[in-house]
Amino acid sequence: MQKDITYHQPIIKYHDGHFIEQTDNIATEFPLTLYVNQQEFATIVCSPTHLKELVLGFLASEGVIFRQADVKDIHLDDSKGFCHITLNRDIEQHYGHYTKRMISSCCGKSRQFYFVNDAATSKVSMTTTKITADEIFRMMKALQEESTDFKQTGGLHNAAISDGKDFYIHRSDIGRHNALDKLFGYCIQQRIPIRDKVLIFSGRISSEILIKASKIGVGIILSKSAPTDLAIRLADDLNITAVGFIRNQSFNIYSHSERII
Amino acid sequence: MQKDITYHQPIIKYHDGHFIEQTDNIATEFPLTLYVNQQEFATIVCSPTHLKELVLGFLASEGVIFRQADVKDIHLDDSKGFCHITLNRDIEQHYGHYTKRMISSCCGKSRQFYFVNDAATSKVSMTTTKITADEIFRMMKALQEESTDFKQTGGLHNAAISDGKDFYIHRSDIGRHNALDKLFGYCIQQRIPIRDKVLIFSGRISSEILIKASKIGVGIILSKSAPTDLAIRLADDLNITAVGFIRNQSFNIYSHSERII
Repeated sequence: MQKDITYHQPIIKYHDGHFIEQTDNIATEFPLTLYVNQQEFATIVCSPTHLKELVLGFLASEGVIFRQADVKDIHLDDSKGFCHITLNRDIEQHYGHYTKRMISSCCGKSRQFYFVNDAATSKVSMTTTKITADEIFRMMKALQEESTDFKQTGGLHNAAISDGKDFYIHRSDIGRHNALDKLFGYCIQQRIPIRDKVLIFSGRISSEILIKASKIGVGIILSKSAPTDLAIRLADDLNITAVGFIRNQSFNIYSHSERII
Repeated sequence: MQKDITYHQPIIKYHDGHFIEQTDNIATEFPLTLYVNQQEFATIVCSPTHLKELVLGFLASEGVIFRQADVKDIHLDDSKGFCHITLNRDIEQHYGHYTKRMISSCCGKSRQFYFVNDAATSKVSMTTTKITADEIFRMMKALQEESTDFKQTGGLHNAAISDGKDFYIHRSDIGRHNALDKLFGYCIQQRIPIRDKVLIFSGRISSEILIKASKIGVGIILSKSAPTDLAIRLADDLNITAVGFIRNQSFNIYSHSERII
């Protein structure tokens, strides 16, 4: 039986000198352990929704699969939090790379990936999409309106894929990476071409998030929060437009501003 | 040469229909790869400050060391982002446990750890500390006042250790775990007894953060944000008082309310 994304918990609230017993809505946290070809691969701590999409997106961003057809079978036991994935091929050749750090200077520029595997699965964006300031505000507003669970719990990250006008898909998770992996998994399942889409995200743009956006294949990422310096350098190199601090009729463009018109 | 925690970046700001070129203060992100006894152990992506404390705290929370004396030598190359740690003992015996998931029911209660190693290093709190609502507000206010880098970049997490009155130490990092590991490393270095201290934290209380608080050894954790359901269950089991949503003269107590007076 799948658990809910939130959960009612008795708490004690203090307000202005008084303690009151009440019930609060809390984000559920669910550990899901992945076995790939019968080998323990990773444990993802996530919100327990859209778990197959999460698994597909996670494996794709780790470079273990490239398309749905690489997966022979997914057996999800969501009562115990285990997922057994059988691939159509071996993963041995990759296995050692998942945690091997690589720092290199590609293309004569500053591109720094910490994991060999990221370098193999990130792609320089070929998008031709341009968006307007009004579209940016409208998409961020839509993300916030979709995010009722966040309003209830204050504990979830939200992400969506859009063509600049409408959302194709919206997902929430307690983990920032997971919310993106769920989108990625959905797009792989539904074979949605990503090149000209926009990623809208509630969280901070760290280098890991930027790398994940690149793996998903978007050319524009919009965030309510701040980026880091390494994320900006990667966005520059990977030809991704990074926009942050989208609030009250203003935002900041950190890279490839030519796509904001 | 150590990098700064923030960095000046030219950006394009959009506000009310106008694009303006300006400079923004951005959080630096620094990958630090740890070699323990000449074996690659982990890469921590962090803010490049207090790196030795970070390394000590990280190794302690992973259960690799228990005290400063377990470390024979730390050689930090912060220009390239490598740290070589030589221990006074072997780590082979532990190595396989770091990523092995364990779900068990200890003490007849709901305690769930996903990693074997967490179960070995988390401790049930023995604190006798009690704090008042006023002290809670004062400590959270002090954390926010210390956090000038957060105000500048919007990208850093802040954490502090207090006796309920004054801060012993305050640390910032782009990574939530790292901010806590820096505190932990400092306390190990300075041999500060933790049992009766309070942890004040800017971020969300996930199960991982709660487990880290338990490893550090505090009995009370105060947060500006929300906890997750698993964090609350762990706090219950580990005898830790978890207080969240500390804002505008109100807060929520999620576990062991007997310590808030």
